[in-house]
Amino acid sequence: MEFKAIVVDIDGTITYSDRSIDCRAVEALRGVKVPVVLATGNVLCFARAASKLVGTGGLVIAENGGVIECGIVEFDKSHMKMCEEAFKALNRHFPLERLDPENRITEIGLRRNFDVEKARHILNEFSELDIVDTGFAVHIKSRSINKGTGLKRLAELMGISALDFVAIGDSPNDIEMLKASGFGVAVGNAHPDLKKTAKMVTTGEHGAGVAEAIQHISGKTAI
Amino acid sequence: MEFKAIVVDIDGTITYSDRSIDCRAVEALRGVKVPVVLATGNVLCFARAASKLVGTGGLVIAENGGVIECGIVEFDKSHMKMCEEAFKALNRHFPLERLDPENRITEIGLRRNFDVEKARHILNEFSELDIVDTGFAVHIKSRSINKGTGLKRLAELMGISALDFVAIGDSPNDIEMLKASGFGVAVGNAHPDLKKTAKMVTTGEHGAGVAEAIQHISGKTAI
Repeated sequence: MEFKAIVVDIDGTITYSDRSIDCRAVEALRGVKVPVVLATGNVLCFARAASKLVGTGGLVIAENGGVIECGIVEFDKSHMKMCEEAFKALNRHFPLERLDPENRITEIGLRRNFDVEKARHILNEFSELDIVDTGFAVHIKSRSINKGTGLKRLAELMGISALDFVAIGDSPNDIEMLKASGFGVAVGNAHPDLKKTAKMVTTGEHGAGVAEAIQHISGKTAI
Repeated sequence: MEFKAIVVDIDGTITYSDRSIDCRAVEALRGVKVPVVLATGNVLCFARAASKLVGTGGLVIAENGGVIECGIVEFDKSHMKMCEEAFKALNRHFPLERLDPENRITEIGLRRNFDVEKARHILNEFSELDIVDTGFAVHIKSRSINKGTGLKRLAELMGISALDFVAIGDSPNDIEMLKASGFGVAVGNAHPDLKKTAKMVTTGEHGAGVAEAIQHISGKTAI
């Protein structure tokens, strides 16, 4: 099968666990001939900065699919009210710290300094809500938005299908993105749940895994 | 002389001219034992993202010195009204495009698609204003704020002097920063005006220049 693009998670996948960039991923992605999309749970201005620095031309999925950019910026704020209500309910139990409140527009990001399992229990009544722990932050978000839905819409704007993508990630919030893609890759350091979803699990971790995946695929088709 | 910290410009210095990161700079900066500050004309959220990805721990000078972060964020919005007036005056002559208007709080950034010399002439009456062309963007800003004033204040917050810094840059908007520092370095691709200010001009360009400067200084003192 021929792939027309790559979508790759940022934190933990093209970065080390301290969130600093892994230059092995940067070099590998720069060698690719097809468009590269960066996908993240982080906000748009972070995703844009990362795209500029990695040199991938500005195609991004931010806020776990809530915001996408492909020439134009699209976002879905419709679930924010519900997220705010859930935040208030949760804040009665934990002293929460919001991440980038001034820039995050479609979901709520929280510092990982509270018991996420207990939080899930407290928010049980919010059936449309999803609480995602990426290992870098906890996100209160709508179940109907994820990196998979973001990828499908971005692919549409690019005039291709999500199935034309190779998707590479490390975390549970990459599951839907890998499932929506044509070929899902989990890097060696990925969460076990993501590895179960992936068609390929690399031996290398972080950037080495990204380079390994790209080399594997480019041996079979032109990317 | 012993240096206690390094301050380095982002665009054109630790990046190539297309603004993508030069991994030679990343690796060199990661090998340094003293604190590394990233300085940029770009907005705080870009500077933060770059600091995270390069792995320099969050010490940043953004908006050409108008915003600094060192644990706390400090900014000076007092000249924004004058910048807005100048922008209005200029916009009567050119169709201007503002960069990051929602995130830029102490000055105005403009796309480089107009005649900067003509703009200087038009804004002649605004004697406290400075128009800086970094090669990446044009900034309408106060003359009293620059990367040099930003460095002095950041050094103060760090409990050291600006003279304890090695400063590395490529553009005219790095002149005051190099002058305020103890040892100013211009990378090989730097603007002639910056090279005149520098104590050292590297042979290497971009990241190779940064690596060369660090190697040169570490051969003489511990950094």
